[in-house]
Amino acid sequence: MNILLKLSFLGTNYSGFQVQKNALTVQERLQDAVESVFGYRCPLTGCGRTDSGVHAKEFYCTINTACAPNNISAGIIPDALNHHLPHDISIIEAAEVSDSFHPRYDVIRKEYLYLIWNERYPNPFFTDRAYHYVRPLEAEKMNESAAHLIGIHDFTAFMAAGSSVTDTIREIYDARVTRENSFIKIIINGNGFLYNMMRIISGTLIYISEGKIPSDAIPRIIEGKNRVAAGFTVPAHGLYLNRVVYKTDA
Amino acid sequence: MNILLKLSFLGTNYSGFQVQKNALTVQERLQDAVESVFGYRCPLTGCGRTDSGVHAKEFYCTINTACAPNNISAGIIPDALNHHLPHDISIIEAAEVSDSFHPRYDVIRKEYLYLIWNERYPNPFFTDRAYHYVRPLEAEKMNESAAHLIGIHDFTAFMAAGSSVTDTIREIYDARVTRENSFIKIIINGNGFLYNMMRIISGTLIYISEGKIPSDAIPRIIEGKNRVAAGFTVPAHGLYLNRVVYKTDA
Repeated sequence: MNILLKLSFLGTNYSGFQVQKNALTVQERLQDAVESVFGYRCPLTGCGRTDSGVHAKEFYCTINTACAPNNISAGIIPDALNHHLPHDISIIEAAEVSDSFHPRYDVIRKEYLYLIWNERYPNPFFTDRAYHYVRPLEAEKMNESAAHLIGIHDFTAFMAAGSSVTDTIREIYDARVTRENSFIKIIINGNGFLYNMMRIISGTLIYISEGKIPSDAIPRIIEGKNRVAAGFTVPAHGLYLNRVVYKTDA
Repeated sequence: MNILLKLSFLGTNYSGFQVQKNALTVQERLQDAVESVFGYRCPLTGCGRTDSGVHAKEFYCTINTACAPNNISAGIIPDALNHHLPHDISIIEAAEVSDSFHPRYDVIRKEYLYLIWNERYPNPFFTDRAYHYVRPLEAEKMNESAAHLIGIHDFTAFMAAGSSVTDTIREIYDARVTRENSFIKIIINGNGFLYNMMRIISGTLIYISEGKIPSDAIPRIIEGKNRVAAGFTVPAHGLYLNRVVYKTDA
Protein backbone atom coordinates (compact mmCIF):
# COMPACT_ATOMS: atom_id res chain seq x y z
CA MET A 1 0.00 0.00 0.00
CA ASN A 2 1.23 3.49 -0.85
CA ILE A 3 0.24 5.84 1.97
CA LEU A 4 0.47 9.61 1.72
CA LEU A 5 1.20 11.30 5.06
CA LYS A 6 0.62 14.99 5.69
CA LEU A 7 2.75 16.31 8.51
CA SER A 8 3.82 19.46 10.26
CA PHE A 9 7.16 20.01 11.98
CA LEU A 10 9.14 22.56 13.93
CA GLY A 11 12.54 22.39 12.25
CA THR A 12 14.65 23.84 15.07
CA ASN A 13 16.11 20.56 16.28
CA TYR A 14 16.66 18.99 12.87
CA SER A 15 19.21 19.13 10.07
CA GLY A 16 16.36 19.38 7.60
CA PHE A 17 13.97 16.71 6.36
CA GLN A 18 16.19 14.48 4.26
CA VAL A 19 18.22 11.69 5.93
CA GLN A 20 21.94 12.33 6.15
CA LYS A 21 24.89 10.81 7.96
CA ASN A 22 25.78 12.02 11.45
CA ALA A 23 22.89 14.45 11.71
CA LEU A 24 19.40 14.21 13.14
CA THR A 25 16.70 14.68 10.51
CA VAL A 26 12.91 14.65 10.43
CA GLN A 27 12.95 11.74 8.00
CA GLU A 28 15.03 9.61 10.34
CA ARG A 29 12.63 10.20 13.24
CA LEU A 30 9.75 9.43 10.94
CA GLN A 31 11.33 6.21 9.66
CA ASP A 32 11.87 5.06 13.25
CA ALA A 33 8.21 5.71 14.06
CA VAL A 34 7.07 3.93 10.88
CA GLU A 35 9.24 0.94 11.78
CA SER A 36 7.73 0.84 15.30
CA VAL A 37 4.18 0.95 13.96
CA PHE A 38 4.45 -1.24 10.84
CA GLY A 39 7.12 -3.64 12.08
CA TYR A 40 9.23 -2.89 9.01
CA ARG A 41 11.45 -0.05 7.80
CA CYS A 42 9.04 0.89 4.97
CA PRO A 43 10.51 2.98 2.12
CA LEU A 44 9.73 6.67 2.73
CA THR A 45 9.84 9.45 0.14
CA GLY A 46 9.44 13.16 0.95
CA CYS A 47 7.96 15.99 -1.13
CA GLY A 48 11.32 17.74 -1.12
CA ARG A 49 14.29 18.68 1.00
CA THR A 50 14.33 21.37 3.64
CA ASP A 51 17.37 23.07 5.12
CA SER A 52 18.48 22.78 8.71
CA GLY A 53 16.19 24.77 11.01
CA VAL A 54 13.47 25.32 8.38
CA HIS A 55 9.89 24.60 9.50
CA ALA A 56 6.94 23.05 7.71
CA LYS A 57 3.30 23.83 8.36
CA GLU A 58 2.55 21.32 5.62
CA PHE A 59 4.88 18.63 4.40
CA TYR A 60 4.06 15.40 2.58
CA CYS A 61 5.72 12.04 2.26
CA THR A 62 4.70 8.57 1.16
CA ILE A 63 5.44 5.29 2.86
CA ASN A 64 5.19 2.02 1.01
CA THR A 65 3.85 -0.59 3.38
CA ALA A 66 3.69 -3.47 0.85
CA CYS A 67 6.32 -5.54 2.70
CA ALA A 68 5.20 -4.60 6.23
CA PRO A 69 3.89 -7.39 8.49
CA ASN A 70 1.46 -5.01 10.25
CA ASN A 71 -1.58 -3.78 8.36
CA ILE A 72 -3.14 -0.59 9.77
CA SER A 73 -6.11 1.24 8.30
CA ALA A 74 -5.30 4.80 7.17
CA GLY A 75 -7.64 6.43 9.69
CA ILE A 76 -5.64 5.26 12.68
CA ILE A 77 -2.15 5.84 11.20
CA PRO A 78 -1.75 9.47 12.45
CA ASP A 79 -2.46 8.47 16.08
CA ALA A 80 -0.20 5.43 15.84
CA LEU A 81 2.72 7.37 14.36
CA ASN A 82 2.28 10.44 16.60
CA HIS A 83 2.55 8.16 19.60
CA HIS A 84 6.09 7.26 18.48
CA LEU A 85 7.10 10.73 17.29
CA PRO A 86 8.61 13.60 19.33
CA HIS A 87 6.41 16.65 19.99
CA ASP A 88 8.03 18.72 17.23
CA ILE A 89 6.74 16.42 14.45
CA SER A 90 3.05 15.71 14.01
CA ILE A 91 1.18 13.61 11.43
CA ILE A 92 -2.04 15.43 10.61
CA GLU A 93 -3.46 13.26 7.83
CA ALA A 94 -2.97 9.85 6.19
CA ALA A 95 -4.59 8.52 3.03
CA GLU A 96 -4.08 5.61 0.67
CA VAL A 97 -2.90 6.73 -2.78
CA SER A 98 -2.21 4.86 -6.03
CA ASP A 99 1.16 3.15 -6.40
CA SER A 100 2.04 5.57 -9.20
CA PHE A 101 1.64 8.64 -6.97
CA HIS A 102 4.97 10.37 -6.29
CA PRO A 103 5.14 12.91 -3.43
CA ARG A 104 7.83 15.00 -5.16
CA TYR A 105 7.15 14.67 -8.90
CA ASP A 106 3.41 15.15 -8.54
CA VAL A 107 3.68 18.49 -6.72
CA ILE A 108 2.28 21.26 -8.90
CA ARG A 109 2.68 24.16 -6.50
CA LYS A 110 4.50 25.02 -3.29
CA GLU A 111 4.07 28.01 -1.03
CA TYR A 112 6.71 29.34 1.34
CA LEU A 113 6.34 31.86 4.14
CA TYR A 114 9.25 33.91 5.42
CA LEU A 115 8.41 35.35 8.83
CA ILE A 116 10.13 38.43 10.24
CA TRP A 117 9.71 39.85 13.75
CA ASN A 118 10.21 43.55 13.02
CA GLU A 119 10.61 45.19 16.42
CA ARG A 120 13.34 46.83 18.43
CA TYR A 121 13.45 44.03 21.03
CA PRO A 122 13.38 40.26 20.62
CA ASN A 123 10.15 38.27 20.97
CA PRO A 124 10.81 35.30 23.30
CA PHE A 125 7.93 33.36 21.69
CA PHE A 126 9.57 33.52 18.24
CA THR A 127 13.21 32.70 18.91
CA ASP A 128 14.09 30.20 16.15
CA ARG A 129 10.64 30.80 14.58
CA ALA A 130 11.00 34.26 13.04
CA TYR A 131 13.95 36.34 11.87
CA HIS A 132 14.40 39.29 14.22
CA TYR A 133 15.02 42.40 12.11
CA VAL A 134 15.40 45.54 14.20
CA ARG A 135 15.10 48.38 11.67
CA PRO A 136 11.52 49.15 10.52
CA LEU A 137 10.67 47.53 7.19
CA GLU A 138 8.27 48.97 4.62
CA ALA A 139 5.89 46.15 3.76
CA GLU A 140 4.15 48.05 1.00
CA LYS A 141 7.37 48.89 -0.82
CA MET A 142 8.50 45.25 -0.49
CA ASN A 143 5.11 44.06 -1.74
CA GLU A 144 5.25 46.24 -4.86
CA SER A 145 8.75 44.98 -5.68
CA ALA A 146 7.80 41.36 -5.02
CA ALA A 147 5.14 41.55 -7.75
CA HIS A 148 7.99 41.65 -10.32
CA LEU A 149 8.85 38.05 -9.39
CA ILE A 150 5.53 36.76 -10.73
CA GLY A 151 5.78 34.90 -14.03
CA ILE A 152 8.09 32.40 -15.75
CA HIS A 153 11.70 33.44 -15.22
CA ASP A 154 15.23 32.11 -15.04
CA PHE A 155 15.92 32.58 -11.32
CA THR A 156 19.69 31.91 -11.45
CA ALA A 157 20.35 35.24 -9.66
CA PHE A 158 18.31 33.95 -6.70
CA MET A 159 20.04 30.57 -6.44
CA ALA A 160 22.82 29.82 -3.94
CA ALA A 161 26.22 29.20 -5.48
CA GLY A 162 27.17 25.52 -5.54
CA SER A 163 23.78 24.20 -6.57
CA SER A 164 24.02 21.50 -9.23
CA VAL A 165 20.59 22.29 -10.72
CA THR A 166 20.77 23.12 -14.43
CA ASP A 167 17.13 23.91 -15.18
CA THR A 168 16.80 27.24 -13.41
CA ILE A 169 13.47 28.31 -14.89
CA ARG A 170 10.56 28.45 -12.45
CA GLU A 171 7.10 29.95 -12.52
CA ILE A 172 6.02 32.15 -9.62
CA TYR A 173 2.24 32.43 -9.35
CA ASP A 174 1.99 34.85 -6.47
CA ALA A 175 4.31 36.95 -4.29
CA ARG A 176 3.00 39.07 -1.43
CA VAL A 177 4.45 41.00 1.49
CA THR A 178 2.16 42.06 4.32
CA ARG A 179 2.55 43.53 7.79
CA GLU A 180 0.55 42.00 10.66
CA ASN A 181 1.27 44.10 13.75
CA SER A 182 4.99 43.61 14.38
CA PHE A 183 5.38 40.77 11.90
CA ILE A 184 6.32 40.98 8.24
CA LYS A 185 5.13 38.02 6.17
CA ILE A 186 6.66 37.25 2.77
CA ILE A 187 4.56 34.61 1.01
CA ILE A 188 5.60 33.19 -2.35
CA ASN A 189 3.82 30.58 -4.35
CA GLY A 190 5.34 28.81 -7.37
CA ASN A 191 5.78 25.58 -9.28
CA GLY A 192 9.22 25.09 -7.70
CA PHE A 193 12.05 26.83 -5.89
CA LEU A 194 15.81 26.76 -6.50
CA TYR A 195 18.30 26.21 -3.67
CA ASN A 196 17.95 29.07 -1.14
CA MET A 197 15.71 30.96 -3.59
CA MET A 198 13.11 31.92 -0.99
CA ARG A 199 15.79 33.09 1.45
CA ILE A 200 17.66 35.15 -1.19
CA ILE A 201 14.39 36.72 -2.43
CA SER A 202 13.53 37.65 1.19
CA GLY A 203 16.97 39.21 1.72
CA THR A 204 16.60 41.13 -1.56
CA LEU A 205 13.21 42.51 -0.48
CA ILE A 206 14.74 43.61 2.85
CA TYR A 207 17.53 45.42 0.94
CA ILE A 208 14.88 47.05 -1.24
CA SER A 209 13.03 48.28 1.85
CA GLU A 210 16.32 49.69 3.17
CA GLY A 211 17.14 51.40 -0.15
CA LYS A 212 20.28 49.28 -0.62
CA ILE A 213 18.75 47.91 -3.84
CA PRO A 214 16.44 50.14 -5.97
CA SER A 215 12.77 49.21 -5.71
CA ASP A 216 12.49 48.59 -9.49
CA ALA A 217 15.62 46.41 -9.69
CA ILE A 218 14.08 42.92 -9.60
CA PRO A 219 13.55 42.58 -13.41
CA ARG A 220 17.19 43.64 -13.97
CA ILE A 221 18.46 41.24 -11.28
CA ILE A 222 16.54 38.36 -12.89
CA GLU A 223 17.87 39.27 -16.34
CA GLY A 224 21.48 39.61 -15.11
CA LYS A 225 21.50 36.02 -13.74
CA ASN A 226 24.16 37.07 -11.26
CA ARG A 227 23.75 36.07 -7.59
CA VAL A 228 25.88 39.05 -6.52
CA ALA A 229 23.24 41.54 -7.68
CA ALA A 230 20.61 40.11 -5.35
CA GLY A 231 20.38 40.65 -1.58
CA PHE A 232 21.69 38.58 1.32
CA THR A 233 20.49 35.13 2.31
CA VAL A 234 18.25 35.52 5.34
CA PRO A 235 18.62 32.89 8.09
CA ALA A 236 16.78 29.56 7.85
CA HIS A 237 14.80 29.84 11.09
CA GLY A 238 12.24 32.32 9.67
CA LEU A 239 11.34 30.00 6.78
CA TYR A 240 8.21 27.85 6.62
CA LEU A 241 7.04 25.48 3.91
CA ASN A 242 3.46 26.71 4.09
CA ARG A 243 1.55 24.66 1.56
CA VAL A 244 2.06 21.89 -0.98
CA VAL A 245 -0.49 21.37 -3.74
CA TYR A 246 -0.86 18.13 -5.77
CA LYS A 247 -2.48 17.56 -9.16
CA THR A 248 -5.51 15.97 -7.59
CA ASP A 249 -6.14 19.05 -5.42
CA ALA A 250 -6.14 21.40 -8.42
CA MET B 1 16.54 55.11 40.99
CA ASN B 2 13.41 52.98 40.78
CA ILE B 3 13.19 51.48 37.29
CA LEU B 4 10.10 49.77 35.94
CA LEU B 5 10.88 47.00 33.46
CA LYS B 6 8.33 45.55 31.08
CA LEU B 7 9.22 42.07 29.95
CA SER B 8 7.92 39.09 28.07
CA PHE B 9 8.89 35.49 28.73
CA LEU B 10 8.26 31.96 27.55
CA GLY B 11 7.73 30.09 30.82
CA THR B 12 8.50 26.55 29.60
CA ASN B 13 11.96 26.32 31.13
CA TYR B 14 11.16 28.07 34.42
CA SER B 15 9.58 27.22 37.76
CA GLY B 16 7.59 30.45 37.53
CA PHE B 17 8.72 34.03 38.05
CA GLN B 18 9.41 34.19 41.78
CA VAL B 19 12.81 33.09 43.12
CA GLN B 20 12.82 29.79 44.96
CA LYS B 21 15.41 27.36 46.24
CA ASN B 22 16.69 24.58 43.97
CA ALA B 23 14.64 25.69 40.96
CA LEU B 24 15.37 27.91 37.99
CA THR B 25 13.10 30.96 37.88
CA VAL B 26 12.72 33.99 35.62
CA GLN B 27 13.52 36.30 38.52
CA GLU B 28 16.84 34.58 39.17
CA ARG B 29 17.88 34.93 35.53
CA LEU B 30 16.82 38.54 35.63
CA GLN B 31 18.71 39.28 38.84
CA ASP B 32 21.85 37.77 37.31
CA ALA B 33 21.47 40.02 34.25
CA VAL B 34 20.82 43.09 36.43
CA GLU B 35 23.94 42.31 38.45
CA SER B 36 26.02 41.98 35.28
CA VAL B 37 24.77 45.30 33.93
CA PHE B 38 24.61 47.43 37.11
CA GLY B 39 27.53 45.84 38.98
CA TYR B 40 25.25 45.19 41.95
CA ARG B 41 22.49 42.75 42.88
CA CYS B 42 19.79 45.46 42.85
CA PRO B 43 16.55 44.61 44.72
CA LEU B 44 13.97 43.34 42.24
CA THR B 45 10.19 43.17 42.79
CA GLY B 46 7.74 41.50 40.39
CA CYS B 47 4.10 42.35 39.61
CA GLY B 48 3.07 38.93 40.92
CA ARG B 49 3.94 35.26 40.90
CA THR B 50 3.42 32.89 38.03
CA ASP B 51 3.29 29.10 38.17
CA SER B 52 5.82 26.79 36.62
CA GLY B 53 5.43 26.71 32.83
CA VAL B 54 3.13 29.76 32.65
CA HIS B 55 4.03 32.39 30.04
CA ALA B 56 3.85 36.18 30.09
CA LYS B 57 3.28 38.40 27.09
CA GLU B 58 3.50 41.31 29.53
CA PHE B 59 5.09 41.17 32.95
CA TYR B 60 6.44 44.04 35.06
CA CYS B 61 9.05 44.35 37.75
CA THR B 62 11.00 47.16 39.35
CA ILE B 63 14.70 47.28 40.11
CA ASN B 64 16.09 49.72 42.61
CA THR B 65 19.47 50.88 41.36
CA ALA B 66 20.15 53.36 44.21
CA CYS B 67 23.18 51.41 45.49
CA ALA B 68 24.50 50.32 42.08
CA PRO B 69 27.92 51.59 40.99
CA ASN B 70 26.90 51.68 37.32
CA ASN B 71 24.48 54.35 36.17
CA ILE B 72 22.70 53.57 32.90
CA SER B 73 20.06 55.72 31.24
CA ALA B 74 16.67 54.01 30.94
CA GLY B 75 16.70 54.07 27.12
CA ILE B 76 19.63 51.68 26.90
CA ILE B 77 18.62 49.34 29.73
CA PRO B 78 16.57 46.89 27.58
CA ASP B 79 19.51 46.32 25.19
CA ALA B 80 21.97 45.96 28.05
CA LEU B 81 19.83 43.46 29.97
CA ASN B 82 18.73 41.50 26.87
CA HIS B 83 22.39 40.96 26.06
CA HIS B 84 22.75 39.08 29.36
CA LEU B 85 19.40 37.28 29.25
CA PRO B 86 18.56 33.94 27.58
CA HIS B 87 16.33 34.01 24.46
CA ASP B 88 13.19 33.06 26.38
CA ILE B 89 13.17 36.30 28.40
CA SER B 90 13.08 39.71 26.74
CA ILE B 91 12.99 43.21 28.22
CA ILE B 92 10.74 45.29 25.99
CA GLU B 93 10.59 48.60 27.93
CA ALA B 94 12.33 50.41 30.79
CA ALA B 95 11.29 53.65 32.46
CA GLU B 96 12.15 55.55 35.62
CA VAL B 97 9.27 55.65 38.10
CA SER B 98 8.83 57.35 41.49
CA ASP B 99 10.28 55.61 44.55
CA SER B 100 6.77 55.09 45.88
CA PHE B 101 5.68 53.08 42.83
CA HIS B 102 5.07 49.42 43.66
CA PRO B 103 4.85 46.92 40.76
CA ARG B 104 2.42 44.64 42.63
CA TYR B 105 0.29 46.92 44.84
CA ASP B 106 -0.23 49.51 42.09
CA VAL B 107 -1.70 47.03 39.59
CA ILE B 108 -5.35 47.87 38.97
CA ARG B 109 -6.13 45.24 36.38
CA LYS B 110 -4.66 42.02 34.98
CA GLU B 111 -5.66 40.07 31.93
CA TYR B 112 -5.00 36.37 31.40
CA LEU B 113 -5.30 34.33 28.23
CA TYR B 114 -5.83 30.60 28.26
CA LEU B 115 -4.97 29.13 24.87
CA ILE B 116 -6.35 25.81 23.64
CA TRP B 117 -5.36 23.97 20.46
CA ASN B 118 -8.65 22.28 19.64
CA GLU B 119 -7.83 19.77 16.91
CA ARG B 120 -7.64 16.03 16.53
CA TYR B 121 -3.84 16.04 16.10
CA PRO B 122 -1.13 17.93 18.00
CA ASN B 123 0.35 21.17 16.67
CA PRO B 124 4.16 20.94 16.82
CA PHE B 125 4.41 24.76 16.97
CA PHE B 126 2.34 24.91 20.17
CA THR B 127 3.77 22.12 22.32
CA ASP B 128 4.12 23.74 25.76
CA ARG B 129 2.33 26.87 24.43
CA ALA B 130 -1.29 25.75 24.15
CA TYR B 131 -3.34 23.02 25.81
CA HIS B 132 -4.17 20.34 23.26
CA TYR B 133 -7.85 19.42 23.67
CA VAL B 134 -8.99 16.83 21.15
CA ARG B 135 -12.80 16.92 21.39
CA PRO B 136 -14.46 19.88 19.62
CA LEU B 137 -15.30 22.73 22.00
CA GLU B 138 -18.24 25.09 21.60
CA ALA B 139 -16.79 28.58 21.95
CA GLU B 140 -20.17 30.32 21.87
CA LYS B 141 -21.61 28.21 24.68
CA MET B 142 -18.44 28.78 26.74
CA ASN B 143 -18.61 32.50 26.01
CA GLU B 144 -22.22 32.81 27.20
CA SER B 145 -21.39 30.98 30.43
CA ALA B 146 -18.22 33.03 31.00
CA ALA B 147 -20.31 36.21 31.11
CA HIS B 148 -21.67 35.07 34.49
CA LEU B 149 -18.20 35.56 35.97
CA ILE B 150 -18.33 39.32 35.38
CA GLY B 151 -18.85 41.40 38.54
CA ILE B 152 -17.72 41.41 42.17
CA HIS B 153 -17.85 37.89 43.57
CA ASP B 154 -16.34 35.62 46.18
CA PHE B 155 -14.37 33.25 43.96
CA THR B 156 -13.56 30.62 46.64
CA ALA B 157 -15.01 27.88 44.42
CA PHE B 158 -12.39 28.77 41.78
CA MET B 159 -9.39 28.76 44.13
CA ALA B 160 -7.02 25.82 44.51
CA ALA B 161 -7.13 24.07 47.89
CA GLY B 162 -4.20 24.98 50.10
CA SER B 163 -4.12 28.69 49.29
CA SER B 164 -3.62 30.84 52.38
CA VAL B 165 -5.47 33.85 50.92
CA THR B 166 -8.39 34.95 53.12
CA ASP B 167 -9.81 37.80 51.05
CA THR B 168 -11.38 35.81 48.22
CA ILE B 169 -13.46 38.60 46.69
CA ARG B 170 -12.37 39.78 43.25
CA GLU B 171 -13.92 41.85 40.51
CA ILE B 172 -13.98 40.47 36.98
CA TYR B 173 -14.39 43.19 34.36
CA ASP B 174 -14.56 41.06 31.25
CA ALA B 175 -14.65 37.37 30.32
CA ARG B 176 -14.70 36.22 26.70
CA VAL B 177 -14.28 32.96 24.81
CA THR B 178 -13.61 33.04 21.08
CA ARG B 179 -12.60 30.59 18.39
CA GLU B 180 -9.84 31.58 15.96
CA ASN B 181 -9.54 28.74 13.46
CA SER B 182 -8.39 25.76 15.51
CA PHE B 183 -7.63 27.78 18.64
CA ILE B 184 -9.97 28.55 21.53
CA LYS B 185 -9.02 31.71 23.44
CA ILE B 186 -10.34 32.30 26.96
CA ILE B 187 -9.55 35.90 27.99
CA ILE B 188 -10.40 37.16 31.46
CA ASN B 189 -9.73 40.60 32.85
CA GLY B 190 -10.04 41.48 36.53
CA ASN B 191 -8.63 43.38 39.48
CA GLY B 192 -6.96 40.23 40.75
CA PHE B 193 -6.93 36.44 40.53
CA LEU B 194 -6.86 33.78 43.25
CA TYR B 195 -4.45 30.85 43.14
CA ASN B 196 -5.19 28.75 40.02
CA MET B 197 -8.40 30.75 39.46
CA MET B 198 -7.81 31.23 35.73
CA ARG B 199 -6.98 27.55 35.24
CA ILE B 200 -10.03 26.34 37.22
CA ILE B 201 -12.33 28.75 35.35
CA SER B 202 -10.93 27.44 32.04
CA GLY B 203 -11.51 23.82 33.11
CA THR B 204 -15.04 24.70 34.19
CA LEU B 205 -15.80 26.29 30.81
CA ILE B 206 -14.48 23.15 29.08
CA TYR B 207 -16.79 21.00 31.24
CA ILE B 208 -19.68 23.31 30.35
CA SER B 209 -18.93 22.87 26.65
CA GLU B 210 -18.90 19.09 27.17
CA GLY B 211 -22.19 19.15 29.10
CA LYS B 212 -20.51 17.82 32.26
CA ILE B 213 -21.55 21.02 34.05
CA PRO B 214 -24.83 22.79 33.05
CA SER B 215 -24.32 25.98 31.05
CA ASP B 216 -26.17 28.10 33.65
CA ALA B 217 -24.27 26.70 36.65
CA ILE B 218 -21.64 29.41 37.19
CA PRO B 219 -23.74 31.63 39.52
CA ARG B 220 -24.56 28.55 41.66
CA ILE B 221 -20.91 27.43 41.71
CA ILE B 222 -19.82 30.92 42.84
CA GLU B 223 -22.51 30.97 45.53
CA GLY B 224 -21.67 27.46 46.78
CA LYS B 225 -18.00 28.40 47.47
CA ASN B 226 -17.06 24.77 46.98
CA ARG B 227 -14.07 23.94 44.76
CA VAL B 228 -15.53 20.49 44.04
CA ALA B 229 -18.47 21.98 42.12
CA ALA B 230 -16.17 23.67 39.58
CA GLY B 231 -14.32 21.97 36.72
CA PHE B 232 -10.79 20.56 36.52
CA THR B 233 -7.59 22.60 36.66
CA VAL B 234 -6.26 22.85 33.10
CA PRO B 235 -2.47 22.52 32.68
CA ALA B 236 -0.19 25.53 33.16
CA HIS B 237 1.38 25.53 29.70
CA GLY B 238 -1.70 27.09 27.99
CA LEU B 239 -1.73 30.07 30.35
CA TYR B 240 -0.45 33.55 29.49
CA LEU B 241 -0.36 36.69 31.60
CA ASN B 242 -1.58 38.86 28.75
CA ARG B 243 -1.70 42.40 30.14
CA VAL B 244 -1.02 44.32 33.36
CA VAL B 245 -2.55 47.76 33.85
CA TYR B 246 -1.30 50.36 36.38
CA LYS B 247 -3.08 53.35 37.86
CA THR B 248 -1.17 55.76 35.64
CA ASP B 249 -2.34 53.94 32.48
CA ALA B 250 -6.00 54.17 33.42
